[in-house]
Amino acid sequence: MSDNSYVLAGDVGGTNLRIAAVDCDGTILHLAQAATPQTGVDADIIDAIVTGGEACIAAIKPDARPNSFGLAVAALVDTNGTGRILGAPNLPQLNGLPLADLLATRLDLRVTLENDATAAAVGEHWLGSSKDVDNSIFVTLGTGIGGGLILNGRPYRGTDGTAGEIGHICVEPEGIACGCGSRGCVEQYASASAIVRIARELLHRDSTSGLKQKPDFSAKDVYDAAIGGDPLSLKVFRTMGCYLGVALADLVNVLNPELIVIGGKVASGWDLFIEDVRTEIMERAFRYPAETVTLERALLGDSAGILGAARVAFDQV
Amino acid sequence: MSDNSYVLAGDVGGTNLRIAAVDCDGTILHLAQAATPQTGVDADIIDAIVTGGEACIAAIKPDARPNSFGLAVAALVDTNGTGRILGAPNLPQLNGLPLADLLATRLDLRVTLENDATAAAVGEHWLGSSKDVDNSIFVTLGTGIGGGLILNGRPYRGTDGTAGEIGHICVEPEGIACGCGSRGCVEQYASASAIVRIARELLHRDSTSGLKQKPDFSAKDVYDAAIGGDPLSLKVFRTMGCYLGVALADLVNVLNPELIVIGGKVASGWDLFIEDVRTEIMERAFRYPAETVTLERALLGDSAGILGAARVAFDQV
Repeated sequence: MSDNSYVLAGDVGGTNLRIAAVDCDGTILHLAQAATPQTGVDADIIDAIVTGGEACIAAIKPDARPNSFGLAVAALVDTNGTGRILGAPNLPQLNGLPLADLLATRLDLRVTLENDATAAAVGEHWLGSSKDVDNSIFVTLGTGIGGGLILNGRPYRGTDGTAGEIGHICVEPEGIACGCGSRGCVEQYASASAIVRIARELLHRDSTSGLKQKPDFSAKDVYDAAIGGDPLSLKVFRTMGCYLGVALADLVNVLNPELIVIGGKVASGWDLFIEDVRTEIMERAFRYPAETVTLERALLGDSAGILGAARVAFDQV
Repeated sequence: MSDNSYVLAGDVGGTNLRIAAVDCDGTILHLAQAATPQTGVDADIIDAIVTGGEACIAAIKPDARPNSFGLAVAALVDTNGTGRILGAPNLPQLNGLPLADLLATRLDLRVTLENDATAAAVGEHWLGSSKDVDNSIFVTLGTGIGGGLILNGRPYRGTDGTAGEIGHICVEPEGIACGCGSRGCVEQYASASAIVRIARELLHRDSTSGLKQKPDFSAKDVYDAAIGGDPLSLKVFRTMGCYLGVALADLVNVLNPELIVIGGKVASGWDLFIEDVRTEIMERAFRYPAETVTLERALLGDSAGILGAARVAFDQV
């Protein structure tokens, strides 16, 4: 591989779509961004990805072709076969589509799909918090909760490529119904949506909180109130931290990781919840793996997925 | 390795201790069995292991030395370093002991320790239910619940060697206190001890069960009653199956295994609980990995650990 070689890397979510040209050091040479088409038509998303890819290729000097294309998608993807989308709650028009093959034909490039949270785990392992760590778990706390596993120094994808769905570890067997069809998933107790729900429930019992003034408050509003010292909002983050700790203690017992990396927008509230996460892990997991594991914030922010997709593309070359 | 080469393999539990000479096909050439010394003195256990090992070496013709010694222990073991025992609730006299080094000196052999449930997973992967399967989970249902992981075709041991503690996945965050220090571990809801506890609780509300006649009933008694059609005992196994299903659904979401192998004495009740396990997995896990995973009974019974330890020993040669 020559020094000026590069790959295409992309990250397709329900809201935003980003395609980049990335070199082998992880430098983003060019970035094309767009809103994810909301037409419900699969071809519109494919066109948008192709347009972004072509814009990156056109922008790079010297005029070299990329070596490969890695694409992170907010979906369960079959990483072992044709790059088919196995399930995409936030991009239902892609369900069942052999997306990698379709893009490969359009762009005349080898295309490899990756689940977006696994891609972020790969990105953090390449250039971020879990660099040089052989066994780590990446958890992304956003509207939902996603996860990716690095085991024995490599991304672990499971039999079909669907491994890492940490957000659907059960923390209350008869708990809140989850979009996945189950009940009591940690996603219902420690995501941004969960923060709003828990705050609403507590407000029924406590009307002194400033949140009462803002009927349609968001997780960010709960965060701001907690930073301002609002006891109810502080309790929301502590509750959320406890539930997250229950799920992570399971993972500490089962996977004995060296590091758990926490990213996503909710990680901004780190100081408000992390001590409760740590306490639950220490109280619930076996002492030895509990003392081994470190919790750290993700370093790469929104770029983790696209950089991980680039790493996956380089690994295919 | 010549055709008549062999290894020593052992399995040390709280009650029994077995050392065998095993050839490269997995044939047990000689087996030395003893009760695990209950003196509370570490040297007595070491002596018993050495005696068993020497008996195996003496019994083998032609008079060849074994290549290596693999030892499965009912303990958390440091598989990366000196083979130190990190925690052994059922063999507390071994806690902290560099057991592999001590045995290596006594027997003049390379000695490798393995957690007993991981060894059983390796045994089933070598010669049993999970042969040729790249991603499988081994669950042993006994007095407690143990587990071992085969990921990407190899045993996954984690950072310290403590991975696979499936029995301590939380299924009720404020549930029954567990010997591990946590609460609500699946071990408290789906092990032999749990079967007795659940039956006792149900008996308080239902006095028609035949179990009422036997105040000190065992899990085997509940099994016999269930086989005889006792509704309360049937309900115990269904309850236990549901809880096991909650924990295994977590693992299906996180690890996307092709196969889950269930062994241990409680697996005898297979027909009494397995449909409830399957139902919980289908209802709780993502559809795709839930449809991928198969549940099977372990094939090797009590020999899984010793055969896995032999495989570990051969891998060291």
